Amino acid sequence: MRNLLVTICYKGTAYHGYQVQKNAVTVAEKVQDAVERVLGRREDIVGCSRTDTGVHANMYCFHMKTEHSIPCERLPGALNTFLPFDIAVLSCREVRPAFHARYHSLGKEYVYKIFNSRIRSPFWEGLAYQYPYALDAETLDRCAQRFLGTHDFRAFCAAGGDLHDTVRTITESRVAREGDLVTYTVRGDGFLYKMVRIMTGTLLLAAAGRLAADDISVILETGDRSRACRTAPAHGLYLNRVFYNEADF
Amino acid sequence: MRNLLVTICYKGTAYHGYQVQKNAVTVAEKVQDAVERVLGRREDIVGCSRTDTGVHANMYCFHMKTEHSIPCERLPGALNTFLPFDIAVLSCREVRPAFHARYHSLGKEYVYKIFNSRIRSPFWEGLAYQYPYALDAETLDRCAQRFLGTHDFRAFCAAGGDLHDTVRTITESRVAREGDLVTYTVRGDGFLYKMVRIMTGTLLLAAAGRLAADDISVILETGDRSRACRTAPAHGLYLNRVFYNEADF
Repeated sequence: MRNLLVTICYKGTAYHGYQVQKNAVTVAEKVQDAVERVLGRREDIVGCSRTDTGVHANMYCFHMKTEHSIPCERLPGALNTFLPFDIAVLSCREVRPAFHARYHSLGKEYVYKIFNSRIRSPFWEGLAYQYPYALDAETLDRCAQRFLGTHDFRAFCAAGGDLHDTVRTITESRVAREGDLVTYTVRGDGFLYKMVRIMTGTLLLAAAGRLAADDISVILETGDRSRACRTAPAHGLYLNRVFYNEADF
Repeated sequence: MRNLLVTICYKGTAYHGYQVQKNAVTVAEKVQDAVERVLGRREDIVGCSRTDTGVHANMYCFHMKTEHSIPCERLPGALNTFLPFDIAVLSCREVRPAFHARYHSLGKEYVYKIFNSRIRSPFWEGLAYQYPYALDAETLDRCAQRFLGTHDFRAFCAAGGDLHDTVRTITESRVAREGDLVTYTVRGDGFLYKMVRIMTGTLLLAAAGRLAADDISVILETGDRSRACRTAPAHGLYLNRVFYNEADF
């Protein structure tokens, strides 16, 4: 039995997230449809992460076990023929049988895109959060740095998330502006349910002057979620990278 | 009677071009719908240019005569409230009664976006021409320079265009790559029917080795359209700027 690690990207607008659900069209379902067409069997695919409805991915990984002998270099082109335009297979590599796309992930990087202009852009609709009020990227960046390090992020987990183990380590957390586009980049060993969107929402509260950088540290220390109560919309969020240890392949 | 010069941008995917047509939804019709909601009258609007089905605009201008007293600074926000997400009013200024958005245009700049990667991007679908074959931007740029200057562009006019006066002056014509995105920028005093798309298609023939830079000069000199026979698809094209003389306002 071969084990294939497949990397895809997708525009999440039309999907109820990545993972297969009953009664809702998802990215995984579309991928499995294509797999069935190419390999003649509806193989199970195991994703690196859940993603919410409307969230995008510049890079998403899944593993798939198959007896099929298709060469890795031919699989992306073959699958893309049967995929809708908003999902694309980027690459495929064979990995050892025990490799698991989720368990072996060392961490992930997300970017959250904010189109910050008084007037909405037709071109960023659905692809960035259109935020019309003044945003000082430097202030946001200073606040974002408070997330760096190992903290208990229970205040940044949405209701319905697992609160069993809420300690995470953030290794990158920065905000930068390029023209009207403000991007928050955050990298960590793992993320709680809606954590990046709540972190971004909290940064936007800071931008609006309703929170100071020190308040973010206080929220992290106390775990008081009532103060980190804004969740930025899903359509600004992109899973940007998934990290693995080459040795695990 | 006031004369207002209004600047808009739009994503052309859903529209049969700018200009009002019977039996087809167009940008101008949507703008007039919004004007009617805001001003209480369906004022005539006179655009700076026609655009083809699916073509986008980062900047498009029209003028509109009205007796309404709405301040210029309030009009964009008011119209945007009634416009669909893929059209946005950027600004408005009052101009002299004789000003005409088309006749007073000194020239225009277009950009043509090519997403040049072996694998299609879900995010550029409809917003760039997805071209999977090798493209050398420097070769294209050398070819593009042949368009500079004053030439008879009859070979670069699609059937149905007016062949009465086909001499145009191109003041900028360059190709640049940024990652997978190759952009052709062309500025001139005017453009024939589908001229930029045929110019781009010709550059792509050159990229494929089916035409040399010298051939472009020959086509311009002879007007032999049989050699400039490829029209790049509409959805990669953006009207980028419209130029006016400040004195004409």
